[in-house]
Amino acid sequence: MYNSIALIGGDKRQLYCAKEFLNDGYKVTLSGFDKLKSDGEFVLSDPFSAVKNSDIVVLPLPCVKNGYINAPFSHEKIKLSDELLSALSDKKIFCGQSEKLLSLAPQLKREKVFDYSLREEFAIMNALVTAEGAVEIAMREFEGVISHSRCLVCGYGRIGKLLCEKLCALNADVTVSARKQEDLAYISTKNCKAVKTDSLCELSPFDIIFNTVPALVFDQKVLSHIAKDALLIDLASIPGGVDFESASRLSISTIHALSLPGKAAPKTAGQIIKNTITNMLEEDDRCQKPA
Amino acid sequence: MYNSIALIGGDKRQLYCAKEFLNDGYKVTLSGFDKLKSDGEFVLSDPFSAVKNSDIVVLPLPCVKNGYINAPFSHEKIKLSDELLSALSDKKIFCGQSEKLLSLAPQLKREKVFDYSLREEFAIMNALVTAEGAVEIAMREFEGVISHSRCLVCGYGRIGKLLCEKLCALNADVTVSARKQEDLAYISTKNCKAVKTDSLCELSPFDIIFNTVPALVFDQKVLSHIAKDALLIDLASIPGGVDFESASRLSISTIHALSLPGKAAPKTAGQIIKNTITNMLEEDDRCQKPA
Amino acid sequence: MYNSIALIGGDKRQLYCAKEFLNDGYKVTLSGFDKLKSDGEFVLSDPFSAVKNSDIVVLPLPCVKNGYINAPFSHEKIKLSDELLSALSDKKIFCGQSEKLLSLAPQLKREKVFDYSLREEFAIMNALVTAEGAVEIAMREFEGVISHSRCLVCGYGRIGKLLCEKLCALNADVTVSARKQEDLAYISTKNCKAVKTDSLCELSPFDIIFNTVPALVFDQKVLSHIAKDALLIDLASIPGGVDFESASRLSISTIHALSLPGKAAPKTAGQIIKNTITNMLEEDDRCQKPA
Amino acid sequence: MYNSIALIGGDKRQLYCAKEFLNDGYKVTLSGFDKLKSDGEFVLSDPFSAVKNSDIVVLPLPCVKNGYINAPFSHEKIKLSDELLSALSDKKIFCGQSEKLLSLAPQLKREKVFDYSLREEFAIMNALVTAEGAVEIAMREFEGVISHSRCLVCGYGRIGKLLCEKLCALNADVTVSARKQEDLAYISTKNCKAVKTDSLCELSPFDIIFNTVPALVFDQKVLSHIAKDALLIDLASIPGGVDFESASRLSISTIHALSLPGKAAPKTAGQIIKNTITNMLEEDDRCQKPA
Repeated sequence: MYNSIALIGGDKRQLYCAKEFLNDGYKVTLSGFDKLKSDGEFVLSDPFSAVKNSDIVVLPLPCVKNGYINAPFSHEKIKLSDELLSALSDKKIFCGQSEKLLSLAPQLKREKVFDYSLREEFAIMNALVTAEGAVEIAMREFEGVISHSRCLVCGYGRIGKLLCEKLCALNADVTVSARKQEDLAYISTKNCKAVKTDSLCELSPFDIIFNTVPALVFDQKVLSHIAKDALLIDLASIPGGVDFESASRLSISTIHALSLPGKAAPKTAGQIIKNTITNMLEEDDRCQKPA
Repeated sequence: MYNSIALIGGDKRQLYCAKEFLNDGYKVTLSGFDKLKSDGEFVLSDPFSAVKNSDIVVLPLPCVKNGYINAPFSHEKIKLSDELLSALSDKKIFCGQSEKLLSLAPQLKREKVFDYSLREEFAIMNALVTAEGAVEIAMREFEGVISHSRCLVCGYGRIGKLLCEKLCALNADVTVSARKQEDLAYISTKNCKAVKTDSLCELSPFDIIFNTVPALVFDQKVLSHIAKDALLIDLASIPGGVDFESASRLSISTIHALSLPGKAAPKTAGQIIKNTITNMLEEDDRCQKPA
Repeated sequence: MYNSIALIGGDKRQLYCAKEFLNDGYKVTLSGFDKLKSDGEFVLSDPFSAVKNSDIVVLPLPCVKNGYINAPFSHEKIKLSDELLSALSDKKIFCGQSEKLLSLAPQLKREKVFDYSLREEFAIMNALVTAEGAVEIAMREFEGVISHSRCLVCGYGRIGKLLCEKLCALNADVTVSARKQEDLAYISTKNCKAVKTDSLCELSPFDIIFNTVPALVFDQKVLSHIAKDALLIDLASIPGGVDFESASRLSISTIHALSLPGKAAPKTAGQIIKNTITNMLEEDDRCQKPA
Repeated sequence: MYNSIALIGGDKRQLYCAKEFLNDGYKVTLSGFDKLKSDGEFVLSDPFSAVKNSDIVVLPLPCVKNGYINAPFSHEKIKLSDELLSALSDKKIFCGQSEKLLSLAPQLKREKVFDYSLREEFAIMNALVTAEGAVEIAMREFEGVISHSRCLVCGYGRIGKLLCEKLCALNADVTVSARKQEDLAYISTKNCKAVKTDSLCELSPFDIIFNTVPALVFDQKVLSHIAKDALLIDLASIPGGVDFESASRLSISTIHALSLPGKAAPKTAGQIIKNTITNMLEEDDRCQKPA
């Protein structure tokens, strides 16, 4: 069992993550939040002391940005100095996008660096936050209600599944496109219409279109079949699944919504990081030692 | 049957309302939208000509503001001049909050003035828009997801019913308070917990609280039992159901959300006006004449 | 406060009702259940002693049948003898369809006889049981799944509302008919289609039709427009809302489902009786006396 | 393109399957339904002629039983005679559990025998029918309503997923057990509680327990922690996931529900067979020839 934890860098998500560890009884030290006043709950400290005095270390997602620890709430940049690295090298480090850390600090032992952002449950729980965030965007941007609006969800992966569920729950008139017969079968068990992704051009008009597929699905040809007053929300990570230039030429409103979890629900996003780390700690017997 | 319709004043809702009448085959004349360029669909005209050349007249909600026809999209104020009134006096007038019109222009015949804002189906459909708008606010302001958040809906009238439904659909952990046993019975058939409104002080903490009751439910005493980090959204019309001053003193975040339909979903709000007027036209045999 | 309660007559519902009172700490005496072996929880007794030794008396729904207390689980008929009536006359009596009791025993004081079956929350909660029971019948009789089946619910009263909700939840393709504009408005906020009851003849075919309206909606003319392979489930109490003779002649499968709560879910039906009586006891200050 | 199809053997599912092919414009010949009178739609014929005169052949699930074609609606047993086999050997054969056919008739060419029962979309769609069938059983056997009943679904595979969804939709209080973190993550995005399968003994009591796991989850130890009045419905195929003997000794009500699709909804089950075959025909280019 570990008793103390240092969180270095990150944004609101890390603060909520820290709160959750605190609620679990950990001694929590924060570093890289000097824009924050201590509220008596957390210990605030410099990175080296934070690491030194803690059993485990948590870094944000992404853990590293432009050669420094990603710490948007810190006035000073946090450098991976020799001193800090030597303190870190003893500890278990939990971070997001660990490859960035390991390439910047190759002296860290790979077996001591754990990447929560690669875990499947992390991706699933974040898909829920993304799905809700997408609904929020649609509610804000679309001038009608979601109820009975004609929505297309393109793709039935983690985000597509949960987004489809939310839209159906809000009584939208939902169509979901997928390529695999088994996905089409699952879709047809829901309160929505299943169509093949390669038949998008033949569909009747939609009010709101959500893309979740990380490939150029909405190319010029498909876009030319979309109603002019449709709202197209692309949830696929850069470069996205929409030919934005053609969309603009065709006067189709588009929104490329990126990194929704941290923006739409930092509290939940922080809890997800915490829960994933807890799962990893439980699973990894080697991580366990008597308190 | 009527063939032509004039819409005088109003905001985006009236534009969407106009579009719906157009889709139904009416000749539609708009007035009070000089900030708007004609898009070839509507005839744009001065108020007098608009009324003169139309079978029926539609005014916005509220129809009158500060002594003029409520026309926020017009550069000039639209006065109820003698000329305009004489044109109006021949026509059936559909408006919201008709008493304001009738007190400003007592010479209009009461039996020719129809108030869509008093219709029950109008109130119900707008409650849907308000409920979705409230969810949108909660999504925007609350730092977690709605899913599994602890929500209290105070009141089980039109808005409370639909809001409860939306929150349950989004997998929130919903408690609804009401006073009447029959409301509590209905609530208990849903996926939520029913409590008596007078027991609010005894409840466990909530993340988001929605008030729909137009009475001071959230007085100092009740507020003192609310978690400090709760978000309190008041949907009751002015003065609302919250002692905002005490809430502020207790550092409870509050939002007084007013007139959501027009803000959150003007398209739907406009369609509702149109549908209500259509119902009134159908019902009122006296309104019918051969085309 | 009352401490002891006698339940005379009734079926499984009364047994479950008795169990709930027991769980609340009451001393419970059962009578009219001689087909039942005592399981040590309840006191079993003759009607006179049961009443004599209890603070309040609960009779079933209906309380009286063919001149006796309605006691289908009793070998002997329970007569309202002078002795029993004199014991009863002192007590508060809670029963269903009290008019039957009062006309059989006019000497009972009307102000001491409380009818739970007239309470609105009783009707609402039983509507839920009826709605689930109707779904169960549909699942059993219809040879397809409810999911994506085409269902018509005729009427939007207590049962119609809840049945519509259940069918939508199971992803049926639901149409609801009603007469009032306000009901049609509420229906249109759900995931279903709203139609006017007088337009039933013009609708496209349904797999399953549920009638909840206690009037002859499905007369010969309407029946002649129904698909031959449709299943028609009438939930309206006798005589129902279907011309069964014409339906038979037209080879339409019909089921007249009556008294579903006691049949489909006696446990819940018993809990509803108990909860309603508890509400009545709480409300009626005159009922309260120190324990 | 194929124009004609022979369905040999099977039960009601095959009849509904045949109807669907008919609706798609196929010439359909039925064999093995001599308990049935022709209704003018299907050609009824002996197996040999049926095969001879058709482009493709459909056999039931399972296709073979006790050495004969599985034909419960036929008076006579249908033998795989040399004559019939030689007719079959030319045709594409679609069947369920093809291994049984191929071991009985090894002379059939494996590449001409297509097994729809091995297809993923077939399994998914049948899981929906099974889930609804399980709900029907629960509604019939449980003496309360599903709404607010405490349900446990053990396993989050195809059936567990859809059953969980149905129960949540009916407002049950649902707990789902799974072993994998990613399944637990998905479960936690629904309106239910996620628990680890190995913690079943520690859970609070349930009204209805559904097992979907094909392994002995409900052994004596787990059973001893289950409430005596719980209903335990085992959906796992033989031998199931319940120690039925121990359950009986512990007086726990159990139901081993097998082959639900054909029993609960033969119409849907038949449509699923048809849709799966259609998918296979579409996918298999080699199957296609000009009409």
